[in-house]
Amino acid sequence: MLPVAVDAMGGDDAPHAIVEGAVRAHKAGLPVVLVGDAARLEPLLGASGPDVVHASDVVGMAEGAVAGVRRKPDASVRRALQLVRDGAAGAAVSCGHTGATLVGAVLDLGVLPGAERPAICSVLPRSDGGRLVLLDAGANVDCKPELLASFALIGSAHAEAMGVLAPRIGLLSNGEEDGKGNAQVRATLPLLRELPLRVVGPVEPSAAMAGACDVLVCDGFVGNILLKAAEGAVHTVVTLLREEIERRPSGRLGAWLLRGAFERFRRRVAWDAQGGALLLGTRGLVVVGHGRATPDAVHSAIRLAHRGMRAGLLDGVARRLASRA
Amino acid sequence: MLPVAVDAMGGDDAPHAIVEGAVRAHKAGLPVVLVGDAARLEPLLGASGPDVVHASDVVGMAEGAVAGVRRKPDASVRRALQLVRDGAAGAAVSCGHTGATLVGAVLDLGVLPGAERPAICSVLPRSDGGRLVLLDAGANVDCKPELLASFALIGSAHAEAMGVLAPRIGLLSNGEEDGKGNAQVRATLPLLRELPLRVVGPVEPSAAMAGACDVLVCDGFVGNILLKAAEGAVHTVVTLLREEIERRPSGRLGAWLLRGAFERFRRRVAWDAQGGALLLGTRGLVVVGHGRATPDAVHSAIRLAHRGMRAGLLDGVARRLASRA
Repeated sequence: MLPVAVDAMGGDDAPHAIVEGAVRAHKAGLPVVLVGDAARLEPLLGASGPDVVHASDVVGMAEGAVAGVRRKPDASVRRALQLVRDGAAGAAVSCGHTGATLVGAVLDLGVLPGAERPAICSVLPRSDGGRLVLLDAGANVDCKPELLASFALIGSAHAEAMGVLAPRIGLLSNGEEDGKGNAQVRATLPLLRELPLRVVGPVEPSAAMAGACDVLVCDGFVGNILLKAAEGAVHTVVTLLREEIERRPSGRLGAWLLRGAFERFRRRVAWDAQGGALLLGTRGLVVVGHGRATPDAVHSAIRLAHRGMRAGLLDGVARRLASRA
Repeated sequence: MLPVAVDAMGGDDAPHAIVEGAVRAHKAGLPVVLVGDAARLEPLLGASGPDVVHASDVVGMAEGAVAGVRRKPDASVRRALQLVRDGAAGAAVSCGHTGATLVGAVLDLGVLPGAERPAICSVLPRSDGGRLVLLDAGANVDCKPELLASFALIGSAHAEAMGVLAPRIGLLSNGEEDGKGNAQVRATLPLLRELPLRVVGPVEPSAAMAGACDVLVCDGFVGNILLKAAEGAVHTVVTLLREEIERRPSGRLGAWLLRGAFERFRRRVAWDAQGGALLLGTRGLVVVGHGRATPDAVHSAIRLAHRGMRAGLLDGVARRLASRA
């Protein structure tokens, strides 16, 4: 089994939190290589820790990540991606600047035939117990209809790799009736209907989150708004519910009795339980980790990368994209 | 005090639910007139019920509401709007087709100087205990930057009418850094900064819902997605939490102890506790009620209309829009 190449230098608490997360994954039997400044990383590792691949440079958050990544072929994020390109790793994980990872992935891996640009795929819990693949979750704004059509193919492969045999593809819109949607939605819908996919049509976010589709295709601007609105709403709900519960002693006793339910619930809805999101459309698997990467989140991101490798996700995406070319 | 003109024929359970809601408002001392088919409405009313103004026509949900509204000057929704235009009512409420209400408002009331089109203003609970005015929540898609600038003025007046003295105006975006946002956001931001308003800049939905601004300006397509994503997330959270709570007897006991907290919480986050949203930008106050209008929601929508009248919201909006012309 190929290891996952982890950019040890990207993320808020890098390299410490990244190393700790990678060590946990390593101990749990998930092969990992850490990529970064060997002189800083090796003292953090025990004798039986994961291997280190040296990278002399780092892309800082402040320096303009995109320009930085172009100027620095030896940056840790790029070395991790190059290990994937060269067949030495099965996937790359970075918790650094998302834009830098994106640019690096396009530069060092290249895009797959049929994909003009890669997309970030977020997975959301649905109220029917299923899961919703949302793409693009923020890599591309002002998308052309052709690009959105390629996202439908990528998203279908992603849902198939999660075990959904004939994923239902929805196009994010503000209503399901004719005449709804903006110009982008109206221009994209006919293109989607020509694809060899199970397209259900325009879908509203609330319907998608209740189970109307398995894949929700959208512009990265709108997808990012959707995701952050859902996070904001959940945060508001949890905050206000806590306030009401703590208002009375009976509430505090009730909450104590419910602590197990709250904890199971928390694990189910935590949008970040996956530790990151897959970036799909390049010639290699990439996980964009959360910037606020705790060791647990890093461990989860590595697990997500390994799950994608085991499922043959890269081949699935390439095959889906080729079906259209 | 002028009455609120209520379209009795629009909404899923019209006219029964509308009449019942209007009667509750009337009994609570909020002046109301019901507009619709007098022969159907009068048998539903007691001797001391609200007045009825006859309208011979109805805009059905199926017939293509926009075309229907143009063809039917005597439709109940248009008669209600005409009462506002003629000074016989202070505001109109309709729970019928939103598009029909919108077209009727532009036809019968006309837009205010400085407003090209009206916007739907939704009010969301924030996690800091404040409230967020979101506009446009769905009346206009593919908005030009100039139109978004007029929404900033309208939204500021709305927040002022809620008692916020110098509302902070945010422009909905997918990030706060330079270079984020789509073409629409980047073109709109300089226009907002020229307005006599307290503009805080681009704001992400999660930050807005945590209190970063009082007014969130956006395209109606994106605003509608935001709103329905928030609703979908809340529904998912509530559904999954209930499942976890009902899994064990201790959970059911805990939930019984928490029933008061859950109820207070429900009232705080119910997005539809207002029964509808204000449509602002025309020469008269209009409330777009929920299509699934229960008597409670209708009562709330009438209360919202009266609150707008008492606060002098129409004058406030007109003054804000004129400050720019």
